[in-house]
Amino acid sequence: MPSTRNSADGASRARSFGLACGRLKPGPRNAITDVPGVRVGHCTLDDGAVQTGVTAILPHAGNLYRDKPVAAADVLNGFGKSLGLMQVEELGVLETPILLTNTLSVGTAATALVRHAIAGNPDIGRATATVNPVVMECNDGPLNDIQALAVSEAHAASALAAAAGSPEAAEVASGAVGAGRGMSCFGFKGGIGTASRRLKLDGARHHLGVLVLANFGRPGELRLPDGRRVPPPSSDPSSDPAGEAAPEKGSVIVIAATDAPLDHRQLRRVIRRAGVGLARVGSFWGHGSGDIALGFTTANRLGHDEAADTVALRMLNERRIDMLFEAMADATQEAVLDALAAATPVVGRDGATRPCLRDVLTSGSSS
Amino acid sequence: MPSTRNSADGASRARSFGLACGRLKPGPRNAITDVPGVRVGHCTLDDGAVQTGVTAILPHAGNLYRDKPVAAADVLNGFGKSLGLMQVEELGVLETPILLTNTLSVGTAATALVRHAIAGNPDIGRATATVNPVVMECNDGPLNDIQALAVSEAHAASALAAAAGSPEAAEVASGAVGAGRGMSCFGFKGGIGTASRRLKLDGARHHLGVLVLANFGRPGELRLPDGRRVPPPSSDPSSDPAGEAAPEKGSVIVIAATDAPLDHRQLRRVIRRAGVGLARVGSFWGHGSGDIALGFTTANRLGHDEAADTVALRMLNERRIDMLFEAMADATQEAVLDALAAATPVVGRDGATRPCLRDVLTSGSSS
Amino acid sequence: MPSTRNSADGASRARSFGLACGRLKPGPRNAITDVPGVRVGHCTLDDGAVQTGVTAILPHAGNLYRDKPVAAADVLNGFGKSLGLMQVEELGVLETPILLTNTLSVGTAATALVRHAIAGNPDIGRATATVNPVVMECNDGPLNDIQALAVSEAHAASALAAAAGSPEAAEVASGAVGAGRGMSCFGFKGGIGTASRRLKLDGARHHLGVLVLANFGRPGELRLPDGRRVPPPSSDPSSDPAGEAAPEKGSVIVIAATDAPLDHRQLRRVIRRAGVGLARVGSFWGHGSGDIALGFTTANRLGHDEAADTVALRMLNERRIDMLFEAMADATQEAVLDALAAATPVVGRDGATRPCLRDVLTSGSSS
Amino acid sequence: MPSTRNSADGASRARSFGLACGRLKPGPRNAITDVPGVRVGHCTLDDGAVQTGVTAILPHAGNLYRDKPVAAADVLNGFGKSLGLMQVEELGVLETPILLTNTLSVGTAATALVRHAIAGNPDIGRATATVNPVVMECNDGPLNDIQALAVSEAHAASALAAAAGSPEAAEVASGAVGAGRGMSCFGFKGGIGTASRRLKLDGARHHLGVLVLANFGRPGELRLPDGRRVPPPSSDPSSDPAGEAAPEKGSVIVIAATDAPLDHRQLRRVIRRAGVGLARVGSFWGHGSGDIALGFTTANRLGHDEAADTVALRMLNERRIDMLFEAMADATQEAVLDALAAATPVVGRDGATRPCLRDVLTSGSSS
Repeated sequence: MPSTRNSADGASRARSFGLACGRLKPGPRNAITDVPGVRVGHCTLDDGAVQTGVTAILPHAGNLYRDKPVAAADVLNGFGKSLGLMQVEELGVLETPILLTNTLSVGTAATALVRHAIAGNPDIGRATATVNPVVMECNDGPLNDIQALAVSEAHAASALAAAAGSPEAAEVASGAVGAGRGMSCFGFKGGIGTASRRLKLDGARHHLGVLVLANFGRPGELRLPDGRRVPPPSSDPSSDPAGEAAPEKGSVIVIAATDAPLDHRQLRRVIRRAGVGLARVGSFWGHGSGDIALGFTTANRLGHDEAADTVALRMLNERRIDMLFEAMADATQEAVLDALAAATPVVGRDGATRPCLRDVLTSGSSS
Repeated sequence: MPSTRNSADGASRARSFGLACGRLKPGPRNAITDVPGVRVGHCTLDDGAVQTGVTAILPHAGNLYRDKPVAAADVLNGFGKSLGLMQVEELGVLETPILLTNTLSVGTAATALVRHAIAGNPDIGRATATVNPVVMECNDGPLNDIQALAVSEAHAASALAAAAGSPEAAEVASGAVGAGRGMSCFGFKGGIGTASRRLKLDGARHHLGVLVLANFGRPGELRLPDGRRVPPPSSDPSSDPAGEAAPEKGSVIVIAATDAPLDHRQLRRVIRRAGVGLARVGSFWGHGSGDIALGFTTANRLGHDEAADTVALRMLNERRIDMLFEAMADATQEAVLDALAAATPVVGRDGATRPCLRDVLTSGSSS
Repeated sequence: MPSTRNSADGASRARSFGLACGRLKPGPRNAITDVPGVRVGHCTLDDGAVQTGVTAILPHAGNLYRDKPVAAADVLNGFGKSLGLMQVEELGVLETPILLTNTLSVGTAATALVRHAIAGNPDIGRATATVNPVVMECNDGPLNDIQALAVSEAHAASALAAAAGSPEAAEVASGAVGAGRGMSCFGFKGGIGTASRRLKLDGARHHLGVLVLANFGRPGELRLPDGRRVPPPSSDPSSDPAGEAAPEKGSVIVIAATDAPLDHRQLRRVIRRAGVGLARVGSFWGHGSGDIALGFTTANRLGHDEAADTVALRMLNERRIDMLFEAMADATQEAVLDALAAATPVVGRDGATRPCLRDVLTSGSSS
Repeated sequence: MPSTRNSADGASRARSFGLACGRLKPGPRNAITDVPGVRVGHCTLDDGAVQTGVTAILPHAGNLYRDKPVAAADVLNGFGKSLGLMQVEELGVLETPILLTNTLSVGTAATALVRHAIAGNPDIGRATATVNPVVMECNDGPLNDIQALAVSEAHAASALAAAAGSPEAAEVASGAVGAGRGMSCFGFKGGIGTASRRLKLDGARHHLGVLVLANFGRPGELRLPDGRRVPPPSSDPSSDPAGEAAPEKGSVIVIAATDAPLDHRQLRRVIRRAGVGLARVGSFWGHGSGDIALGFTTANRLGHDEAADTVALRMLNERRIDMLFEAMADATQEAVLDALAAATPVVGRDGATRPCLRDVLTSGSSS
């Protein structure tokens, strides 16, 4: 039976190991849920060779189809199979929760989102338009039997329900949970990670939060904030010193949430800085790595049934945007480290495993 | 039981009604299948309120995952839910057949393509990368009970099998078949249409072929090649002469195939001219219309298992590209008219129908 | 001495010949200057083989560097040499007037805009940022001795002064004036054209206005709103009936202004529909034709010295955007016809000339 | 009198201070000129408050207009005023040398490139098309009196001549020369830097070379390859420890050359990894920093007067592209450090100066 554990249960986080990034302060939970209304739910599949799952992110607690947050997508490396980004870029809004899962389960997760949207909005495809499900993915094939297509619509629904049922501003379980169950990162066990940063605008407190599905990076190239490189214990440092390195495989999905008022163009500029955070941890956005960012702001929402011809919104004074760029770069970097720090051991397909960063950091073997 | 009729069975075509576009000559079948190796298959669902289907396009008869045609996508209006275009733009290749279906069945069709790819390539997700399914869609909700999610993986597989089993360079069934079953266009019955144009390069014969899934256009705004506007009989010309018109709903998918040697950039330039053909028939690329083009060339293919570090390909002398631009604009325009000319009556959800252009053109009531 | 005539002096317009496009009503002048505050000035060079000029568009009468209108650019065909669009797309604002001129004079016009901006803002490049001059161009080489680089900074300054000195909401001189002096279009004399459409939003009157620099289209392919094709008298209809046509040369620049409240993303969607208007008059966006649109709204402006961290703006209810799409397509189509209808004879380099559409329409020789 | 010193005259380089990046080996000169045929020339203006210049890059020694190298551009942050990138993206080729200069001199440099192209190709704008000058820029206002518009066409011509006259595969002068004269970087003196990496494809030696115009980065955020942060001596570490940092100002231009066979799409993917190199040295691609990359390959060239309808080219097996990604990231990082290491003191406008990294590294004050 799949698990839908949502709280972190004292799991270790990046900062448990002193892995803090940048000079800006995190929010109270140092998580994407520091943005009011944002909730996260996981459904984890842990059954022999099946080590995978689904993670759901709800931008707010209301009806997303009726009350659409302004959103944007940015593609650093489009070697990926995400669904729904084209319409996000055209219309500048989200209208469903975001689901994360493994690459070959995108179709199933999309159908689950369609049913979820129809359940809440019976006029879809009848008296009103259809719906744009947003599903993003990474390939967990090295640990998970991805050909099994083990994720069902029920699993996706379970992740959505777990998110909806979580207490407001809950801690987010990170590591080898939900869609992160079978993911790998720099030769270590990867998965879900999160972080946030505080922002002050016109005297008011805001947050930018990031959640990553981290499944990228060549073994040996992980870099900690202090500059140390950390190879996984199993990698042989003497092998291939000058020759061709293993390809950077996998991908990374970066979800950003904020309650700062941004328009679509500004949001795209902000989330592009995910690439800075990924470079800092040691990635060069390798060929095989679909590096994709999606962001939304809860501060600007567009009503599906809006009657007026024009609507008011707020945007940022562009001269203040460096604050958000910095928050985005720092929170992405730390969210990846959080995924690594929180990840617990997984034994997957054909007995495959990945070492856990927490064991390396504890034993002090980094170089 | 769904039908997989693939031949046109004497169905009327655009040219049956004198609707020819441009000065270039069509290929022998005036269809996308004039490009050697391209095949098309339909699975049509016709069961009361369920009036929908799936159309499959095979770029060539071999293993697409192993032998990937160069491809490109262009988005005129991204209000749509197509899957797979991001990777096509990043890597410049197709690696599955293209499936067309209704908007809410994209997930199911994607899963069917994943299974189809794994069946032919058991190393997917294990010893090699995953796979990028390409599914494109329009909303057939006005005629079809789209909430029923009636399209199954078996229907998608059936369309794929029909395409694979069709004779080389077959006629393509057009009109209210396959994914076109429930589509509407300028207030008329729409659906699948196709056309092609001959090209001569360095003395050799080539073709550019187009297949459209036509589901767009405001009633009253259809324009024939001679400039006539053709309103559907049911539209009341006295209504709203100066006021706000009904929104342009629906979408249009334009698939282009060629055996002319183009690189990714050139292919994108060529398929962008789909927008010219759409404008000529009377569209202004309305808000609600996801207008999306996808093209591929069979003349340049990249091997999944290529061992050499560099590979040869051919591209067009850019100064000859106007010939392809013109062919693309003309063939798109004529393919839309072909969809309208071929469409036969459909009685759908709640008894909804659309008039057929063939009846209007026969009775000579155009203005 | 170059002329800076700004008023139309009774010149013929598209509607003088019954060439009206679409069902929406034009503004009082049927010109881009129907958008309050927008002004246009020309400097025309008419001296033997030198037949060229500069056209200046002022988005509003204030200091553009201090009070930046929201803007967007869209590139249908990037075979062109325009300057400044990259920053418009990144920051979503204009901060100088827009200059139009011939292709090889972009550099000189840019320097003139830099000096103009510094004169009004002495802190540029010292106490504040630099400035992004926007210059757009077409190639008038067939009529103008473009190698002479005859446009000087003084000519650009003259066009700017003419625009600034014109009465509010003035008529715009169209045809063979300003940057349009040496332009050709579908084998006829081309140049500057303009049109506008009225919009009602929440009960208030707004306008969308378009100005084109029309220098595109293959001879014989001009199409009037009633569907007639109009070849230039000099083209021989018996030549090359099935063979390779002459390439579509030249380019077209489309400037759109509105006082409807749009954000950057919406503005880009609107101006993209320039391509529809161009297709309707007979273009297929030929290889050699840089087809580029730039738009701005006076309803949303961002202050260079804004002190607050966030600012308010208004945007359109996206469900109303078809009204603007239609206005954009219609006004672009009509502005091109306006350029053709207003153009008077020019004798240029090596005695080259182009027939004037007004003569053909008067003599009724269209087919 | 401006200087056109082209050789490095024993100037220090990044590796003089042990600042080497990555595991790949550099070419023999560790410079962009390791790509056969590429040449670089500078014209440096050093006259009181005028501290600026022009740098010219020749992709090959032939007639670039007749023999166009395949090229691509990538914009990480479009807050910049570069000219010519739109056409590079549309047509995928360069047809002039690349000029780098200060922001307000783009127009003048463009006119110089136009005259240079006409001199070599008298049919431009007469019997053939016009020409697309490529000029890229950074704002050197803090050190240079940029309002003086001191760069003349003669200075641009001088840089072009210096490049053309330099011996094949010459050393490139780096630091405070050419366009780099007045640039600043992380609070230090910046300017021109270069680096290269060796590649082996199908057994043959190739190179990827990078040249940067480095004018970006917040003081205190420079990071060396070993992880050390290096603040400029003048910055007060006690100031503003938690508050708002100074904005990241300036920009960076990254030019990449290779003789590996890439098509336009692949080249764009490769040069995008400039962003990784910039992130590694400490940038988060700040708001005010136009971060723009342009790349070309000498291995694929398209003939302006090509007579055949189709042409052959070679492209990379995409599975080998990580080698180029890594080379691009490493060479960009090292080129920035090279600019910093080579820069010598400049006293500019109002006596402004920037400390030199070489002095800090020598004295061992890094932290």
